[in-house]
Amino acid sequence: MAYVSVFDTQMMSRAIQLARKGLYTTRPNPCVGCVLVQNGQIIGEGYHQVAGQGHAEVNALAHAAANGHKTEGATAYVTLEPCSHYGRTPPCALGLINAKVARVVIAVKDANPQVAGNGINMLRDAGIQVDVGLLESEAFELNLGFMKRMRTGFPWVTVKVAASLDGKTALNNGESKWITGATARDDVQKMRARHCALITGVETILADDPSLNVRYEQLGSLKSSLLPSSLHQPLRVVLDSKARLTSSFKLFNIQSPILLVSTRDYSDEVKCSFAQHVSLLRVNANSQGRVCLTELLQHLGVSCNSVMIEAGATLSGSFIEQNLADELVLYQADKIMGSEGRDMLLLPNYQTMDMIPKIVLKDKRNVGQDTRLIFRLG
Amino acid sequence: MAYVSVFDTQMMSRAIQLARKGLYTTRPNPCVGCVLVQNGQIIGEGYHQVAGQGHAEVNALAHAAANGHKTEGATAYVTLEPCSHYGRTPPCALGLINAKVARVVIAVKDANPQVAGNGINMLRDAGIQVDVGLLESEAFELNLGFMKRMRTGFPWVTVKVAASLDGKTALNNGESKWITGATARDDVQKMRARHCALITGVETILADDPSLNVRYEQLGSLKSSLLPSSLHQPLRVVLDSKARLTSSFKLFNIQSPILLVSTRDYSDEVKCSFAQHVSLLRVNANSQGRVCLTELLQHLGVSCNSVMIEAGATLSGSFIEQNLADELVLYQADKIMGSEGRDMLLLPNYQTMDMIPKIVLKDKRNVGQDTRLIFRLG
Repeated sequence: MAYVSVFDTQMMSRAIQLARKGLYTTRPNPCVGCVLVQNGQIIGEGYHQVAGQGHAEVNALAHAAANGHKTEGATAYVTLEPCSHYGRTPPCALGLINAKVARVVIAVKDANPQVAGNGINMLRDAGIQVDVGLLESEAFELNLGFMKRMRTGFPWVTVKVAASLDGKTALNNGESKWITGATARDDVQKMRARHCALITGVETILADDPSLNVRYEQLGSLKSSLLPSSLHQPLRVVLDSKARLTSSFKLFNIQSPILLVSTRDYSDEVKCSFAQHVSLLRVNANSQGRVCLTELLQHLGVSCNSVMIEAGATLSGSFIEQNLADELVLYQADKIMGSEGRDMLLLPNYQTMDMIPKIVLKDKRNVGQDTRLIFRLG
Repeated sequence: MAYVSVFDTQMMSRAIQLARKGLYTTRPNPCVGCVLVQNGQIIGEGYHQVAGQGHAEVNALAHAAANGHKTEGATAYVTLEPCSHYGRTPPCALGLINAKVARVVIAVKDANPQVAGNGINMLRDAGIQVDVGLLESEAFELNLGFMKRMRTGFPWVTVKVAASLDGKTALNNGESKWITGATARDDVQKMRARHCALITGVETILADDPSLNVRYEQLGSLKSSLLPSSLHQPLRVVLDSKARLTSSFKLFNIQSPILLVSTRDYSDEVKCSFAQHVSLLRVNANSQGRVCLTELLQHLGVSCNSVMIEAGATLSGSFIEQNLADELVLYQADKIMGSEGRDMLLLPNYQTMDMIPKIVLKDKRNVGQDTRLIFRLG
């Protein structure tokens, strides 16, 4: 990366701040922010809000134009490499070239193989100075799911667990209301709202009959910036390997997409009873007769940047054991539930300390009376 | 409590700071600090350092005298009610009366039934103004063990556990080196050095053969204020209900007191093999044939203010289950050890959430790469 100034960093920080506004709405597109600067003054700002609508650069150029600012010779700060391909919108690199900007500062290269440096090349070929890598890791973190999906075809996988200090998610008889407090439970609602899909197991449906949707009224401070109509309900994915579900459960009452994943067909009768918002996916069984998680994630990776596992110890443990999880989010309550309680993650009988899962703390904070810990796995 | 000023609070804070210097050395006496003030100036300071030597008030009066200060009309700030009885030293209340101080400010009343208000009465009878209760809870916290022992005859009981995020203290095969990092392990050394006794079970001795002593070189920053010769080794208590121990274990090699607690006698041969620093205590068995913990604590309460449980899940769990523990100190490592690992506390199969142990967070901080959480039980 070429020399950048404190001013450059300030402008890119602002662009990242703008990009973050799309966190709940851009999927499956990435969050992107853009700031246009002329003679040390911001003349336009934009971010990508909803897939299919204007990209950040287009919005920033329109903002500048609307206020009568000339963009010739300006500098554009973009959190992600401008696109170079015709999708639902024309290439942003072309937009910046046509706007005659003199310099483009990019935080991070696009992992989308259709872009991946082509946007940068287009700009350079047009004689524009391009500096890449300013606040790269901050910009990358904004789009972990999109970046992983573009690179590997798999979504970013987050395992969410709420447990006591002694690692239990329920008493032996299943009683668990409530381990964590209302603030933590509302925080989970926000997490759900950011994810493209939620995955749970049929056992959870049979035992708790949850709706697994995002409840707008529980989004707290987020409500001031997110309209009910802008809220995306995540795809609800239920692993039902033996096709045991029927349409009598609560989650089917909510009219947002559901994907039932099984290793065998549902009976015609049950199939007909499912409403239109329910899709069925048949995948191969693994050696234990369960849904092959790799196959499932590959399927979801076509359209989902990120999936959140809200399941029992067996399914959650499987994602970790099979090295398919990228992140573990643990809501920990200041409670001791006792050795007879239910373990949070079913994992193998490790023989040495170097066999245990590798986790690295990314964030730790109080959420109401509980603690939220975010770990990266790998 | 009568009206106190900001100045009074500052002086009492200083007295508490002085008292804290005795934290590792005064036992079984309490930590006490004293500040003498004449015309708004500190003229003497003292704290109780070692049982049998000068009390805080005596040391402060001596300090003032050594610097040629008159104590007539002065104010004394004392963290604990001055004693009124002749012990190894004459009553401190009398010392203050003889020094002709005009006012005594006391943080907390002594729970010692030999004092318990008598010191205050002595001072008031001599015409001295006495104000009680300034920074009372801070002063009380300094001497939790002493206060509990004086009031109930039982020592303060702290259960210490080092566990992973999923509440495991070892892998299934017992492997546990190391769950927590060196900083946390050094912190445990400091905890040991503050306690009158450590309690463990014979299973821990048989499995790990620990020395259970305080290693001066691991005391870190404490070494600058604590000489090796001032370090008290805590009494090492091993619960060996079936009298299975022999003198071949490592803890016997260290020449500091050991108490072996059993429900039956050791063979004469084994008994003779124990060195002089080993004492034996026979107690009644409970219904499971184990050492009766109440009887044990009553015995220890004669001379111990505080005991620390460093044991396996069964013994540690028993102290909590039987409501005998006052505090839980949990060193938590950012690790997941898996559902096959060993649980941290063996506790009953609770049927409802309101049956789980009541714990209240007192302190939470990073200790190296780990987190130390302190809870009060009850």
